[in-house]
Amino acid sequence: MAKELSFLTKRSEDYSKWYNELVVKADLAEQSDVRGCMVIKPYGYAIWEKMQRILDDMFKETGVQNAYFPLLIPKSFLSKEAEHVEGFAKECAVVTHYRLKSKEDKSGVVVDPAARLEEELIIRPTSETIIWNTFRNWIHSYRDLPLLVNQWCNVMRWEMRTRLFLRTSEFLWQEGHTAHATREEAEARAQQMLKVYANFAEKYMAVPVVQGVKSETERFAGALDTYTIEAMMQDGKALQSGTSHFLGQNFGKAFDVQFLNKENKPEYAWATSWGVSTRLMGALIMTHSDDNGLVLPPALAPIQVVIIPIAKESQMAMIDEKANELSKKLKALGISVKYDNADNKRPGFKFADYELKGVPVRVVIGARDLENGVVEVMRRDTLEKENMPLEGIAEHIKQLLDEIQANIFKKAKDYRDARIYECDDYEDFKKRVQNGGFFLCHWDGTAETEAKIKEDTQATIRCVPFDVEQTPGVDMVSGKPAVARVLIARSY
Amino acid sequence: MAKELSFLTKRSEDYSKWYNELVVKADLAEQSDVRGCMVIKPYGYAIWEKMQRILDDMFKETGVQNAYFPLLIPKSFLSKEAEHVEGFAKECAVVTHYRLKSKEDKSGVVVDPAARLEEELIIRPTSETIIWNTFRNWIHSYRDLPLLVNQWCNVMRWEMRTRLFLRTSEFLWQEGHTAHATREEAEARAQQMLKVYANFAEKYMAVPVVQGVKSETERFAGALDTYTIEAMMQDGKALQSGTSHFLGQNFGKAFDVQFLNKENKPEYAWATSWGVSTRLMGALIMTHSDDNGLVLPPALAPIQVVIIPIAKESQMAMIDEKANELSKKLKALGISVKYDNADNKRPGFKFADYELKGVPVRVVIGARDLENGVVEVMRRDTLEKENMPLEGIAEHIKQLLDEIQANIFKKAKDYRDARIYECDDYEDFKKRVQNGGFFLCHWDGTAETEAKIKEDTQATIRCVPFDVEQTPGVDMVSGKPAVARVLIARSY
Repeated sequence: MAKELSFLTKRSEDYSKWYNELVVKADLAEQSDVRGCMVIKPYGYAIWEKMQRILDDMFKETGVQNAYFPLLIPKSFLSKEAEHVEGFAKECAVVTHYRLKSKEDKSGVVVDPAARLEEELIIRPTSETIIWNTFRNWIHSYRDLPLLVNQWCNVMRWEMRTRLFLRTSEFLWQEGHTAHATREEAEARAQQMLKVYANFAEKYMAVPVVQGVKSETERFAGALDTYTIEAMMQDGKALQSGTSHFLGQNFGKAFDVQFLNKENKPEYAWATSWGVSTRLMGALIMTHSDDNGLVLPPALAPIQVVIIPIAKESQMAMIDEKANELSKKLKALGISVKYDNADNKRPGFKFADYELKGVPVRVVIGARDLENGVVEVMRRDTLEKENMPLEGIAEHIKQLLDEIQANIFKKAKDYRDARIYECDDYEDFKKRVQNGGFFLCHWDGTAETEAKIKEDTQATIRCVPFDVEQTPGVDMVSGKPAVARVLIARSY
Repeated sequence: MAKELSFLTKRSEDYSKWYNELVVKADLAEQSDVRGCMVIKPYGYAIWEKMQRILDDMFKETGVQNAYFPLLIPKSFLSKEAEHVEGFAKECAVVTHYRLKSKEDKSGVVVDPAARLEEELIIRPTSETIIWNTFRNWIHSYRDLPLLVNQWCNVMRWEMRTRLFLRTSEFLWQEGHTAHATREEAEARAQQMLKVYANFAEKYMAVPVVQGVKSETERFAGALDTYTIEAMMQDGKALQSGTSHFLGQNFGKAFDVQFLNKENKPEYAWATSWGVSTRLMGALIMTHSDDNGLVLPPALAPIQVVIIPIAKESQMAMIDEKANELSKKLKALGISVKYDNADNKRPGFKFADYELKGVPVRVVIGARDLENGVVEVMRRDTLEKENMPLEGIAEHIKQLLDEIQANIFKKAKDYRDARIYECDDYEDFKKRVQNGGFFLCHWDGTAETEAKIKEDTQATIRCVPFDVEQTPGVDMVSGKPAVARVLIARSY
């Protein structure tokens, strides 16, 4: 019983609905019966695994080592850093008991009131507190620094409105935490990791990003500076895709992490933290995909090439042989390939299904074409088909995959670049920002102006971009002298 | 300020204390401030990562795909499978609230009583319930089967007495969950995964294991059969190192997972689950290590070769050059190598530290030896040193690593095999079992006998081993006819 493929809502009709349908229909993830928590399905998880593997190697290249810290954090830890607690303590899952017991009538289980914890425990929303509490015992001398640690784990923030990958109560991420002897070194590390994220996004995800620094309002709770990469989705909204924080000595002081410097004097350690999450899946999906389904960059596609036969049963033996030969050649070139000769699905169904799943290259081997020594090759990004000689086709496909990777990045970049506007007039801004896009505007540096823009338009200052030339000007809202031209957009 | 190395307690003095000290001093793990939860330090985590990578590849070879399911499980799910709830619902972390709020005097945070969950959530102690609740929507036809899923994650069981890696409230593991159309296929899968675990333990961990099936008393809660691999530690005690369960249709029925078979008739799906955890780290440490510290099998050692210079400062440039050359050659052979030329630690300190950390091969490059074209090579397993010509040494070390891998397996196997006893006399058994060892004894198949043995000696039936020839006999306790010769031992 083959499942029926139904068409997706078009992006132009309802972008948000299109996304929600796509995530489920492409077998990436689904809602679970636990409020706000998702199930990441095998196909979606395979993409996440590829991301993890690549990022992990990139982190290790910079000297970072993985470790693992507890899931649960004592409630009191959260209060030790004043701003941090405001940002994170509020919406989180609280463990109060450690035992259930059977009901007397055996009809189920209830919480055992006798098993109440003395101090409640919080499921980590982020791990600065428990990690810096641990670092206190690891750091004694400048020789113990820098300490460069990362963990891949689950975290939980009790979200009221959730969307698959973009905002879920539980999500998967990596959180890097580093300790340094000097302010300069910590600042440099925070920026270095932002560069790693930007490289990853552009080179592997094919998602162009704007790098910059957050305004004070938008900073991570407890940070002195938050660096960010911001991507533009096809509806022109921004998606914050990764952040890296310079935390100063806030956590060093809160958890009393001191070291003896070269002059044998005690100092507090300097900190950074940085993370990307399964939210990247949302960025990947929304940047490239179309009304037929997913479009995956070859660098992250679990299946890069699918081979589909079209033939009568009597011809299948010959087609199987050719397909297996081709699979072998592709695998030898490091390309992942699937030959789908299942006989319970029609070719048309398979075509639509692999388009929906975003497989970058489709090869159709037909009995008649084979007589002429050709097969049909389709690229998912443009949906262009071409008949190609079987001879030398593996090498051709390898090149084609590189071309697709480059093309979808270019396409996304062109799309975004055409929607970055300089704007100096607030009335004009208020109208245009509703249609999406990144607006570069002069800002007076005050939280008041920021709040007004948000109230009027729902748009926020995404960052002060690194690569924008800063020239003098006046704030478009207040008319006061501007401190910078900032990137403003509505966002996810 | 180099940290002082202190000696380990000797195994012969206090095996348990030796283990606890070793785990901490070798930088593998430590207790956190959260009761029963450990911090896995970078060196320990690097070993776990190697295990994960190898196991993951082995699972995928058999067709398994990774996925991710929620951390939290609704309390009511646990009650759906009658035996399962008895086994798991009791000692687990219970989430009752989803918000904290600041105290009025701002002195900290308290649980917000208004944010009480309607139904409490449990941090997963294992995920059969939430996964089979999800499988209901994934399985409709025999064509959807088998469904072969695995997840790498954290789980939590509220343990009263914990020991690093061996028994902690939170631990990391993988849990495989499969669904099948027939009983035979599910049983075969459960046994297949046990074989994967046994191969992994013996080939990579160099830990010999006994494979067998658990008695009813020792089965996983909800299983029809539990298969196990049992390893012997150096104190002669058993460590259950991995289990694979045939779950029958228990979860299929509890969560109403039905499929239409080839005859278009509804049937309940058949299930297996199987897991190994960070407990394997305990098995690895306790099987091979000695009074000087860790002994790691080369296949899992994060650093396989360490190179240490002995020279005056004036000679260091020349030594650095030779060491870097050698490092390059070793890396080209796929060997991980560290050159430690830190000038703030004496060679003697480094020697002891890398012995403690179990690095399989140490190369010392001395200025004087170098004049003669030789270096000193020490193997960690036997502590034997040899002067070797630099010429061709990389290839020699590659062979040596294979030899060490084979040798520590043989050593562990010889040790264990010498401590497996057939025993038919209960008085004799009661005395001897206190000194450790695996006892093969006739058993009448009753839970009463099993309970009596446990009460008298603390020893338990570890399994009915697969590879023991079963001959008629009488139970050594009851004198009744035996159903099998079983493996009995004290255990972790």
